[in-house]
Amino acid sequence: MLMIPGPTPVPEKVLLAMAQRPIGHRSGDFSKIIAEINEGLKWLHQSTNEVLSLTVSGTGAMEAGIINFLSPGDHVLVGVNGKFGDRWAQISETFGLNTTRITAEWGQPLDTEEFRSYLEADSNKEIKAVIVTHSETSTGVLNDLETINKYVKAHGEALIIVDAVTSLGAYNVPIDDWGLDVVASGSQKGYMIPPGLGFICVSDKAWKAYETAKFPRFYMDLGKYKKANLKASSPFTPPVNLMYGLRVSLQMMQRESLESIFSRHQRLTNATRAAVKALGLKLFAADDCASTAVTAVDPSPISAEDIRKIMSSKYNIALAGGQDHLKGKIFRIGHLGFVSDRDILAGIACLEATLMELGHDVKPKAGVKAAAALV
Amino acid sequence: MLMIPGPTPVPEKVLLAMAQRPIGHRSGDFSKIIAEINEGLKWLHQSTNEVLSLTVSGTGAMEAGIINFLSPGDHVLVGVNGKFGDRWAQISETFGLNTTRITAEWGQPLDTEEFRSYLEADSNKEIKAVIVTHSETSTGVLNDLETINKYVKAHGEALIIVDAVTSLGAYNVPIDDWGLDVVASGSQKGYMIPPGLGFICVSDKAWKAYETAKFPRFYMDLGKYKKANLKASSPFTPPVNLMYGLRVSLQMMQRESLESIFSRHQRLTNATRAAVKALGLKLFAADDCASTAVTAVDPSPISAEDIRKIMSSKYNIALAGGQDHLKGKIFRIGHLGFVSDRDILAGIACLEATLMELGHDVKPKAGVKAAAALV
Repeated sequence: MLMIPGPTPVPEKVLLAMAQRPIGHRSGDFSKIIAEINEGLKWLHQSTNEVLSLTVSGTGAMEAGIINFLSPGDHVLVGVNGKFGDRWAQISETFGLNTTRITAEWGQPLDTEEFRSYLEADSNKEIKAVIVTHSETSTGVLNDLETINKYVKAHGEALIIVDAVTSLGAYNVPIDDWGLDVVASGSQKGYMIPPGLGFICVSDKAWKAYETAKFPRFYMDLGKYKKANLKASSPFTPPVNLMYGLRVSLQMMQRESLESIFSRHQRLTNATRAAVKALGLKLFAADDCASTAVTAVDPSPISAEDIRKIMSSKYNIALAGGQDHLKGKIFRIGHLGFVSDRDILAGIACLEATLMELGHDVKPKAGVKAAAALV
Repeated sequence: MLMIPGPTPVPEKVLLAMAQRPIGHRSGDFSKIIAEINEGLKWLHQSTNEVLSLTVSGTGAMEAGIINFLSPGDHVLVGVNGKFGDRWAQISETFGLNTTRITAEWGQPLDTEEFRSYLEADSNKEIKAVIVTHSETSTGVLNDLETINKYVKAHGEALIIVDAVTSLGAYNVPIDDWGLDVVASGSQKGYMIPPGLGFICVSDKAWKAYETAKFPRFYMDLGKYKKANLKASSPFTPPVNLMYGLRVSLQMMQRESLESIFSRHQRLTNATRAAVKALGLKLFAADDCASTAVTAVDPSPISAEDIRKIMSSKYNIALAGGQDHLKGKIFRIGHLGFVSDRDILAGIACLEATLMELGHDVKPKAGVKAAAALV
């Protein structure tokens, strides 16, 4: 049982769709599948922009989202309050962008005022992009994208480039309403399918920047993908079987509706957080910046790794550990994608039993009771 | 029934493996799968070099094989006698390499003497790489890689970068014996699994070039993949379910043995070519440069598209068409990967029936008889 923030559980219906024999990716039949997927992706992104599907992981999607719209030496602001923000800063630096890191401690949200002051001070309009991780998977912090985006819009020139890898399909990200320019995500998260596809939704403003952007690109040249999208095709061989799965998962999501998907994720987040508190453990992110995809828990003085080991060996539940300097200090509970109330209650019940086994003073059923009150 | 040069048919056992629930890609259990796959890939590549697995299509693997070992302005020779050679030249040009195209007409093999004269004349050792498509999928031509490589070795400085996308697993490519530096391939070909993974086998000499190569790279930074390989890990989230399938397909290949795999492909190629001749159609590539992955056929004055349509609608067999200027002029029969004698006889029998339906003067059973004599 996967309770990590990706890969997330995959519905049986999706797995069976993926087990179908591949057909030719240039056939009319496959073109119909691409067309259906493209419509579904637009629906999921709440956007009329083309959503491009690349055979890459989430990092590949973010790299494509950066190098297609910028040129060497461009000034960018990158929000860094966790492993993924740090990764986007690394990509920006690797490609020779003039990178200003706007940092916050891991576990804290980015300070929107810092973005405001940089953007307001930039009267020469030299900031070409603001790069933000919406839901920081490494810490369970949801950054205030809406506010940061308002300052970007007030600036007028800069693009807003968003890592929505663990927010898309878990939290309301109204791309067109907010006017987000580049939004990247990956298949093994809210999409409920295995890893292997990255997605990028691109605004008209970003396509204008694309025309003058100067990084060389071929495999990740998004212009090629846009052109192919408009013909329900793909520039390079797509992962046919994964797309069989994606078609089915998008159908399932459409049947559930965005509103229900978002409220389910909020409900499971609330229940998880209430249970963690009731069990006497510390939530790593505050309530007002809690990701609806993943909850990070600081169990000190109990060892996070001891908890993960028992959860895995005795209950066959995979929890994620901490990354980088948080290794061993926190554990993370994924509640993203194909996850139900039952799954959360099961996970909390096992966590409760694990804590008791480790000698932690837990009121019997405290966690389950707290979670059950909210599901 | 897929008779195209990729995606190729996938064994049921592999499809069912892919339908298993994903597990965490950072777990010990998945690390064991990676370790087994890495050993299998080395076996398949006949190499002690690390074989790196990237979530990309074949084009992505080739791009990674080029940008990790070269710097802007480097002089490279690129063999171009079909769509894929042309693509590598485009990538080289896109990234600002000083690109000399060594061309041959589509359907003809590359002239090895041209490579020799460029390399021998290069006394200042300015040629940094020779980029060759081994089996040119668009035309069914197998280029004489062994001879070209000898001239590269005599040059001493240049790397040999090979597109083995439709030769690996279909033809003997003894990477270590020949001393090939960079060999790229893709999953949906000889590997017998769906598209979604690209592979790159890198020599020590190429790793030395990597140290000084200057293209910025992050997602495609092969150093990251090598480091991860040595820990049976991956730098970014791998396509977990496709790797389940790859483990099984590598096991199947190892049971069959490389020798048997190569001789099967040679036998099916011989049978296909004999049948095409017996049916009075023209082989697009000559016998002495015939790919063992795909046979291109020039059916003029019969329309290639008419043949493909009937084969598809009446017999549910997908043949590939011609690409670029060969569109409508040739069709291509894939006999790569999970293909048996029975499949070839079935395909030829249906092709024979199709030709009769189109009013072509065919001796009854000529094709099947010619093929059957060789399987």
